[in-house]
Amino acid sequence: MKQAPITRAALGRLPFYLRYLKSESVASFENVSATTIAKALGFGEVQVRKDLNLVSGAGKPKIGYVTDELIKELEKFLCVRNHSRAVIVGAGKLGKSLLHYDGFEKYGLEISAAFDCNVEKCYSLNFEKNIYPIEKLNEYCTSQNIRIGIITVPEEVAQLICDKMVESNIKAIWNFASCTLKVPDNVLLQQENLALSLAHLNLLMHN
Amino acid sequence: MKQAPITRAALGRLPFYLRYLKSESVASFENVSATTIAKALGFGEVQVRKDLNLVSGAGKPKIGYVTDELIKELEKFLCVRNHSRAVIVGAGKLGKSLLHYDGFEKYGLEISAAFDCNVEKCYSLNFEKNIYPIEKLNEYCTSQNIRIGIITVPEEVAQLICDKMVESNIKAIWNFASCTLKVPDNVLLQQENLALSLAHLNLLMHN
Repeated sequence: MKQAPITRAALGRLPFYLRYLKSESVASFENVSATTIAKALGFGEVQVRKDLNLVSGAGKPKIGYVTDELIKELEKFLCVRNHSRAVIVGAGKLGKSLLHYDGFEKYGLEISAAFDCNVEKCYSLNFEKNIYPIEKLNEYCTSQNIRIGIITVPEEVAQLICDKMVESNIKAIWNFASCTLKVPDNVLLQQENLALSLAHLNLLMHN
Repeated sequence: MKQAPITRAALGRLPFYLRYLKSESVASFENVSATTIAKALGFGEVQVRKDLNLVSGAGKPKIGYVTDELIKELEKFLCVRNHSRAVIVGAGKLGKSLLHYDGFEKYGLEISAAFDCNVEKCYSLNFEKNIYPIEKLNEYCTSQNIRIGIITVPEEVAQLICDKMVESNIKAIWNFASCTLKVPDNVLLQQENLALSLAHLNLLMHN
């Protein structure tokens, strides 16, 4: 039976469980219950049980989970199923900030290279590793078996870059350009919209 | 009859509707039903109808909503009630890319200034408008009546900056640093997690 894919929200909670389980207050105990975890993190107990079920199976009644095992299972879920490398096209401010961001690691993700149509410009300020001319995209993705592409180019060229990624056998695209993109059925497209996140926060503040 | 204020939960779903309606899978269809939206987003159908009712009125039986109209109504709702200015603290790559991003405008939002502890560094490469020393944060926010703050500093100083924002009468904080922050009850905190978005895309690709 194929398991339902984990939701974004549940996935987002997994690193919190992992961080908590590895923290001073828990690491010395052999067992840990969903109730304890829920209380410590301010999550609902039912939610914690559901989340951990996806990763580890149910805890034992009155005992809970074996702390070390649960840590290993969470790490395995986050890393082993995940370990993937991605490339960025568009080495402007946003592209570079993603390239240098170190938060992807805990999800088993690595952004291994960025591509730009103007590599000269990228190099002019200070030498940047891993930034290549856009002409190298296909060769790099094919030889390195890259399946994830991140688009941080201006809206006007986003579809062109998207097409190049598809030709390079990219199967999942994370698009920061504020336009809709056309991809074949076998390619996943995730639209990022930072403006909406801020708009959302603003509305919450006013209500 | 005065309409009941939109609930926090419903408000939280509006950006998801808007994002979905503007996505590739929907934008090419003239009409869209609440059923389709509910399925795509994993929300309850009754909930979707209630939410959209607040913004747009009921859809037509067997036809649903006119996609373009619903998008316009959602955007209007999000814009008209929204007009606000925000400040950024942390004028590194990410901070600057947000400062220069022009996508906020359509939601009635403006990022009017950035602050950094090292303004010299910000200026050294090319002259940047609207970047001020962190010491000016309080004066600026108070005199300009700024209520939204965006944190793009390293994790180690994020709580310090958060406290400075609260002192400067900021009421909503959008945090890009990958750490949890403590804020008073009357301040809204929204955690951004870019790594999570990529991790989720990766998991979807593998499922």
